[in-house]
This record gives sequence, structure tokens and C-alpha cells, in this order.
Amino acid sequence: MTKVRVESFSISIDGFGAGPEQSLENPLGVGGTALHEWAFATRTFQTQLFGNQGGEIGIDDDFAARGFHHVGAWILGRNMFGPVRGPWLDESWRGWWGDNPVYHTPVFVLTNHPRAPLVMEGGTTFHFVTDGIRVALERAREAAEGKDVRIGGGAATIRQYLQERLIDELHVAIAPVLLGTGEHLFGGVDLPNLGYKCAQHVASERATHLVLTRA
Amino acid sequence: MTKVRVESFSISIDGFGAGPEQSLENPLGVGGTALHEWAFATRTFQTQLFGNQGGEIGIDDDFAARGFHHVGAWILGRNMFGPVRGPWLDESWRGWWGDNPVYHTPVFVLTNHPRAPLVMEGGTTFHFVTDGIRVALERAREAAEGKDVRIGGGAATIRQYLQERLIDELHVAIAPVLLGTGEHLFGGVDLPNLGYKCAQHVASERATHLVLTRA
Repeated sequence: MTKVRVESFSISIDGFGAGPEQSLENPLGVGGTALHEWAFATRTFQTQLFGNQGGEIGIDDDFAARGFHHVGAWILGRNMFGPVRGPWLDESWRGWWGDNPVYHTPVFVLTNHPRAPLVMEGGTTFHFVTDGIRVALERAREAAEGKDVRIGGGAATIRQYLQERLIDELHVAIAPVLLGTGEHLFGGVDLPNLGYKCAQHVASERATHLVLTRA
Repeated sequence: MTKVRVESFSISIDGFGAGPEQSLENPLGVGGTALHEWAFATRTFQTQLFGNQGGEIGIDDDFAARGFHHVGAWILGRNMFGPVRGPWLDESWRGWWGDNPVYHTPVFVLTNHPRAPLVMEGGTTFHFVTDGIRVALERAREAAEGKDVRIGGGAATIRQYLQERLIDELHVAIAPVLLGTGEHLFGGVDLPNLGYKCAQHVASERATHLVLTRA
């Protein structure tokens, strides 16, 4: 059975999933990079995402690695795909990740503005979905061919799927930083009322990892 | 120099410092007790607060113990003192803690409704302050006689003192539970903008401990 998972989603102590003022210079918002230091340090990120040698193993790496395990398709909010807002004026924006993005699966991007699919190197194809989160999920499930669907974010996208009880498992990493403003992951979401509980809780020196599951 | 400290203040993963619907039966709100399991298990709480033997030592106990160290006076919000709302109809409510409360210092209770000081056993006297948070702090500083002032809570009281930059150090424990609704500790508080940063981060099996300090 295909699960819908959020993995390695980092939030600050004060609950923000990204800093304010996302831009080309600050894809994660001002101060947002600090949320992900635990992940950047891992062997999984260093070798698989950045093409480097080395990286740390241990608790953080275990979580980073499981995030890519058995994933057959991704869903991203528009802002996670790029800083462009409104209609796609041209095809020049091709994501933050270069010619060979980290996904290596079909990726469904939520947007209000139609755009033709974008075939990248390494097995990643970006599909632009204008029919809402449920249609995006249906298409992602189908494309995943029995594997799981990973919802990459951002916070607003995750909140929408949570509110519809469509997420089976959510791994959140609380980084020991304060952001003050930005996008709050859980704002207005009553998780216990939606059936979620904390199933796992383990901390490293860089982050506290929590796995929330839906009953 | 007298510091103003918040200690052992527990919040849920989703950021709530107490559950909803505080009442005589649920002093910490519905579900709120789960926030404090890390503290209840400690030797400090078992021996000093509950009068039992035993209790766990380690990270959690270190934080529980430091919360009582060098504290010369406390400040509490009205709701932390009791479930009574509005004017004090009589003197019958004497706090949640029996005849010999856990404080053993002067305690300044923020309220809009005057009441005579309440002298308890063991060195605790409750003073009811109707002149606002700054006057309460002045009186607590004086009463602390060179020791520190501990602000016990609740969340709304802490937020007010944070907004006025009056807290020097804040120890927050994130418990691995979801509450969904209740009083959000950091709602609307831009901590970095107020000068706070995370100075310490350590986790036990029961909670993640964070110490925020003001520059």
C-alpha cells in the first residue's frame, strides 16, 4: 500500500518551516538554511545530493536516508520549486537543483498556472498540477508504481494535506534555532483531532527528530 | 545581578504550553499533564515537590534542579495560581499546592483583582499584584534579595515578559506530545528580533531541552 510521507522537514524551536522573504538568494527564506544543518552534515546529503565524499553517520543520517527510501514520486508546493510567482512568463526557471535534480522520480508541482512537463536529467520530470492537492496526490500515487509518495513541502502544502488527513507519516526535525517569523508548520492544525500522534522521538546533537503517524 | 528566568517550561511539539479548558480537574488543561512527564520522573520533583523517595537522575533532573537553584522570588499568572476567574469572591482558594506550597519564597501573582497577601507554610507568601507585569517584577526583584526571579508561567505571562525583553534566560522543554489546541508559548513573539538566541540544546529520552538567552 502506497504511503504518503513527509520526511526530513525541519522546523525551528518557534515552529517555522522556512524563514521569511524567500528569494533567489535565500531559497529557504532569511535564516532558513540553519534549519537544515543537521541534514547537510549527513553522509546521505553529502554523497547523494551534493556529490561529495564523507559526511556523518548516526541518528541524523538514518533519518536523512530513510527519507529517500522507497519513494516513487514527490509533491512540491510552487514556492519549493522556485521563487517565480504568478504565471510562468517563460520556461527558463527549471528548479533550484540544476540539470540533474535530487529527486530522480516524477515530481508534481502544485500551481495555479499551467505549464508543460519539464523533463530533467537523472529521471526527474516536473509535472505542473493545476487541479488541486487531491488530483496531484492521485497522479503521484499512480506514478509511484507501488512505492510511496513523499510530500517535500513547503509548510503551507503540508498543512493542506494534513488538514485533509492525507498524510500517513510525518518526520519533523526541530533544529535548535529561532526564526521569529516565517511559515509556521502547525499553525491552525489540530493534529490530535486529525488523528495524529507522536510515534517516535529521538534526538541528536543537531536536531530532535519526531515521527508523527495517523491512526 | 538578579536574573529573570523561566525554567522547566514545557511545551508540546506543536508549541502549546498547556492544554485547553483548564479546570479544577485539569490544572494544566486537557492533556497538559503529558507535557510534564519528564519533570515528574526526576529525583528533584519526586523528593522536593512530591515528598517521595527515588526519582531519576540525569539530563532531565539536572534541568529540574537548576530551576530551583538561586531563586529568591516567583511570578505567576493568575491562571497558574488557580482556576478562579474574576474578583476573589472569598479567600477560600489558596493555590493548587496545599498548605505548604513548592515555592518557599515570596510569590507575586498577576491579577486585576486586589486581594490581601496569603501567608502559607514553609516560607511561601502569595502577593497579589494589580499594577501590571513591571511592578510585579520590581517587587519580586526586591523580595529576591540578590537571588533570581523565576517566572513560572503560564504561557501568556511569559509572552508578556518576553515582549518587554524582561526575561534573561528561558529554559523550554519540548515534550514528544501533540496538544492541538491550547496556549501557544511563542505565538506572535519574534524572539530573534527581541534579541534571543538558543544557547543550549540537549535532549533526553523524555524531552528536548533548550535554553534561550537574551543578548
